[in-house]
Amino acid sequence: MIQFNNDDTIVALATPSGSSGIAVIRLSGSHAFKISDKLFHGKKPGDQKSHTLHFGKIMDKDSIVDEVVISIFKGPHSYTGEDTIEISCHGSLFVIQKILSLCLAEGARNALPGEFTKRAFMNGKLDLSQAEAVADLIASENESQHRIALQQMRGGYSEKIKEIRQQLIDFAALLELELDFSEEDVEFADRQKFLSLLDSSIETIDQLTTSFNMGNVIKKGIPITIVGKPNVGKSTLLNRLLNEEKAIVSDIPGTTRDYIEDVLQINGIAYRFIDTAGIRSTTDILESKGIERSLEKIREARIILYLADINAPLNDIVSDFKSFHFEPEQHIIIVLNKSDETDSFCNAYDIEEAVATLTKKQTLEISAKLNRNIDKLLSLLEKATGIHHFSSDLVVSNARHLEAFIDANKSLRAARKGLTEKVSGEFVSIDIRSALQALGPITGQISNEDVLSSVFSRFCIGK
Amino acid sequence: MIQFNNDDTIVALATPSGSSGIAVIRLSGSHAFKISDKLFHGKKPGDQKSHTLHFGKIMDKDSIVDEVVISIFKGPHSYTGEDTIEISCHGSLFVIQKILSLCLAEGARNALPGEFTKRAFMNGKLDLSQAEAVADLIASENESQHRIALQQMRGGYSEKIKEIRQQLIDFAALLELELDFSEEDVEFADRQKFLSLLDSSIETIDQLTTSFNMGNVIKKGIPITIVGKPNVGKSTLLNRLLNEEKAIVSDIPGTTRDYIEDVLQINGIAYRFIDTAGIRSTTDILESKGIERSLEKIREARIILYLADINAPLNDIVSDFKSFHFEPEQHIIIVLNKSDETDSFCNAYDIEEAVATLTKKQTLEISAKLNRNIDKLLSLLEKATGIHHFSSDLVVSNARHLEAFIDANKSLRAARKGLTEKVSGEFVSIDIRSALQALGPITGQISNEDVLSSVFSRFCIGK
Repeated sequence: MIQFNNDDTIVALATPSGSSGIAVIRLSGSHAFKISDKLFHGKKPGDQKSHTLHFGKIMDKDSIVDEVVISIFKGPHSYTGEDTIEISCHGSLFVIQKILSLCLAEGARNALPGEFTKRAFMNGKLDLSQAEAVADLIASENESQHRIALQQMRGGYSEKIKEIRQQLIDFAALLELELDFSEEDVEFADRQKFLSLLDSSIETIDQLTTSFNMGNVIKKGIPITIVGKPNVGKSTLLNRLLNEEKAIVSDIPGTTRDYIEDVLQINGIAYRFIDTAGIRSTTDILESKGIERSLEKIREARIILYLADINAPLNDIVSDFKSFHFEPEQHIIIVLNKSDETDSFCNAYDIEEAVATLTKKQTLEISAKLNRNIDKLLSLLEKATGIHHFSSDLVVSNARHLEAFIDANKSLRAARKGLTEKVSGEFVSIDIRSALQALGPITGQISNEDVLSSVFSRFCIGK
Repeated sequence: MIQFNNDDTIVALATPSGSSGIAVIRLSGSHAFKISDKLFHGKKPGDQKSHTLHFGKIMDKDSIVDEVVISIFKGPHSYTGEDTIEISCHGSLFVIQKILSLCLAEGARNALPGEFTKRAFMNGKLDLSQAEAVADLIASENESQHRIALQQMRGGYSEKIKEIRQQLIDFAALLELELDFSEEDVEFADRQKFLSLLDSSIETIDQLTTSFNMGNVIKKGIPITIVGKPNVGKSTLLNRLLNEEKAIVSDIPGTTRDYIEDVLQINGIAYRFIDTAGIRSTTDILESKGIERSLEKIREARIILYLADINAPLNDIVSDFKSFHFEPEQHIIIVLNKSDETDSFCNAYDIEEAVATLTKKQTLEISAKLNRNIDKLLSLLEKATGIHHFSSDLVVSNARHLEAFIDANKSLRAARKGLTEKVSGEFVSIDIRSALQALGPITGQISNEDVLSSVFSRFCIGK
C-alpha cells in the first residue's frame, strides 16, 4: 500500500457548477472540524454529534456569506472514513467561490478529481474495483449501465477475486515451503486439490473475461445499423423508434459527418443506431474515405436491421438482400416495411414467412408509419442483444480489469501446465505469484500510484 | 392571503443537472415521510429525529437504485416550514431520474420553479421581498450583487416598510373613525403627528427609490465604454484590465455582433466594458443601423474612458476630445496611454496636468503595456461608480419594488396635500389606503396569484 498523506484536508464543490437551489461543498480530513468551527456561526460543528444537520451562517470575518445547513459526519462513519462536513449553501457562483476560498484560506486544499473516493479506498471503506464503480455509477445513463455499476460498487466480483487470491497465496506458500525442505522431498501442497483450485479459478476468470464483451457493449451501447435501399423507410423507422419510446436522443456526428449515430435508451439498454442513409446511393464513389468509414461502422455493428419494402417483388427483396455483405458474427433481422400498403396477392405475414424461408434469416413485417409490429421488433432487438440474460451474472465492464484477468489466466494456465508436467514447485510458484500480481490491482490489494491516478482521474472533482 | 394547497407533496432536483459527485433531491409536503418510508431502506425516516442524517438504500421494489444519505427536516423546522426530506444520491442522470420518478409514483408531484420558496413564504418563513432575494442571491455573481441580495434576504427594508404600513394603517383607521362621528366634528387623528409621519415616510421611500439606480447598476453591471481613435491602445488596456485583475470574462455579443461587451468583476463590482473598436474608423457609413446601435451603447454608458495617445500633439489630443460627443450625465475619464513611449519635451505627469486643465476633465496618464497607473485607474473607476458608499445603506434592486414605491409616494404626497389643504378626512383616507395597497405587495402582506407567479417564475426549479 502506498504512503497516503491523511493529514491535509480537502475541499471541493460536490454538485455540478451552475446556479441552482442548493450547492454542496464537501470538506474532508483531519482539520474539517477546525475549519468549519472557524467559518460556521451557529452551534459549533466540532461539538455536535455525527449525522446531524445544523442551520447557521458562513461568515467572512464580520460579513455574512450565506445562510447554510451543514451536515456532520465524524470519521470513520463518513464516505471518506475521515471527519467530513458538507456545507449545503445557496447555489450561487459567487457564494460557492467565496466559501471555497474561505476553506482554502483556513488551510484546506482543493481536492483532485476522485480524491474523496480515493480516501475512501485508502481508509478501507471500499476496494479499488468498488471505487471505480462509483465513477461508472455517476456516468450511468440507463438501467443496464446502472445495474453493472451498482453491482460492482456493492462488491461484485471483488469477493470472488479476493477468495481466489487468498487460496492461491496459501498454495504458493506451501509450494515455497517445500523448497526450503527440498532435500527431504516432502509435499506439503496437495497436488490434486491444487489442480482443482487452478481449474475452478481459470474457469471463473474465463467467465468474467467473456462477460467483458457484454459489459463493454452495455457501457457504450449496442451498435445497430439500419441498412437498406433508398426509400424503404429507414428514417421513418428510426423516428418511430425515437418517438414511440420517448427515447433520449443525441446526435453524435462522425468526424466528417459522413455517418450519424443516434443513441436510444429502450427498456434500459442503450442502442447506438447508425444511420447509413446515402451510402447505398453513392456506390460509385465507394473509394472515398468518408464512405469507407461508414462501411466500417456497418461492419462493427452487432445487429443489422436490413430494411426492405414488402411491396417490392419478392425476387428483388431476396436478391438485393443476398447481394449485401454482412459479417458472419452479425445478427441480421430482415424488416419488411410498409405492410400498410400491401395490396398484393397474399398477406404481409405470408410474405414474411416466405422471405424467412428463402433467406434463412429472422424476418418481420412492420409498418413504421402505422406503428405495426414495432413492439415485436423491439423485443427481437432485445433478444438479439442477449442482455436480458445477464441480470444474475457478474459482468466485467472495465478494460483495466479485463487486461488483468487475461494476464492472470495466462499465468494460471502456465502453472497448471507445470503442475501436470510435474516441473519443480519453484517454477509453478513463480507462475502463481505472477497471477497474484495480475489479480491484486483489481481490488487494490496491490496498487501503485500509476494505477491509482489512472483510476481516480476518471472521476469528477468533488467525488 | 390566497388559498394554498398544502396537502400535496412536491419533489425536484435541487442541484444543477449534470454528472457529479452528489445530487440532492428535495421532497417537501405532508406526505414527504410517507413517501420516503416507502422508498428508503434503512432506518425508517418517519421515526427519526429532525435534523439527522441517515445512510441507506433507495429501492425500486426489490432492486437497489442507489446508496444514499437522507436529511430529515420536520416541519415547521425546515426551509419550507413543511416536513422535508433531502435525498443526497450519486449525481448520475439515470439515478436522479429514477428517484424522481419513484417519488412521483408514490404520489409526489413535480415542483414548479420557486415552489419550495413559495411554500416558505406561504408558511410565514420569509416575506415576499425576502423570497425574491433568494433568487437574487442564487443569481449573484459578484460581491456587491451578493451583498444587496443577502441584505434583502435577511430582512432589508422589509421591516421599515412593515412599520410604515402599520403606522399608516393606524392613522387611516383613526381618520375613518372620525367619519363615523362626522356630525360631532371630532379629531381622533393628531394632524401634526400625521403630517410628520407622512413626511418621514415620503423621505424614506424617496431614498429607497433613488437607490434603485444604484441597485439596478449593481445587479446588471456598470456600463463603461472605452472610446478613442484607432491605435491608442483600447484593446491593450482592456486586456490589461482582464489579465491583471484575474477577472471573470464573458463575451456578450450584440445581436449583430456590432459591439462586444466584456463583463469584468473588479473588487466585487461588475463592469460592462463596451468595446467600440471600429466605430471611429467607419464614420463614413455612420448611417448604418449597426453603428447606430453601438453609438446608442456609448450614450447609455455611465462612465466613459476616453483613451488618447499621450505622445500625440497636445492640441490634437484636446481638439479630438472636444469633437467627441458625450451625454451631460456621463462621467468622463481621459486616459493618456503609452506613457512608456514618451520622449517628448516634458514628462507624462505634466502632460496629464495640462490636458486636465484644458479639458476640465479628470485625466490620468497610464501605460497599459507596462501596467503603469492601472491601479489608479481602477480606483478612479470605483469612485466614479459611487458604489463604495452604499454598503451601509439599504438598496432597492427590484423593479417590482421600485414601481410600488413610486406609486406609494404618489399617494402619500396626495394625502399630504389633502391634509395641509384641510380637505375632508374621507379623501385623505382614500389616498392612504391606496399607498397601503401599493406597499403591501412588496413584503407580500397583500398578494395575489399574479404577483406570486411573476415572483416565483424567476426561480430555478428545486428552490
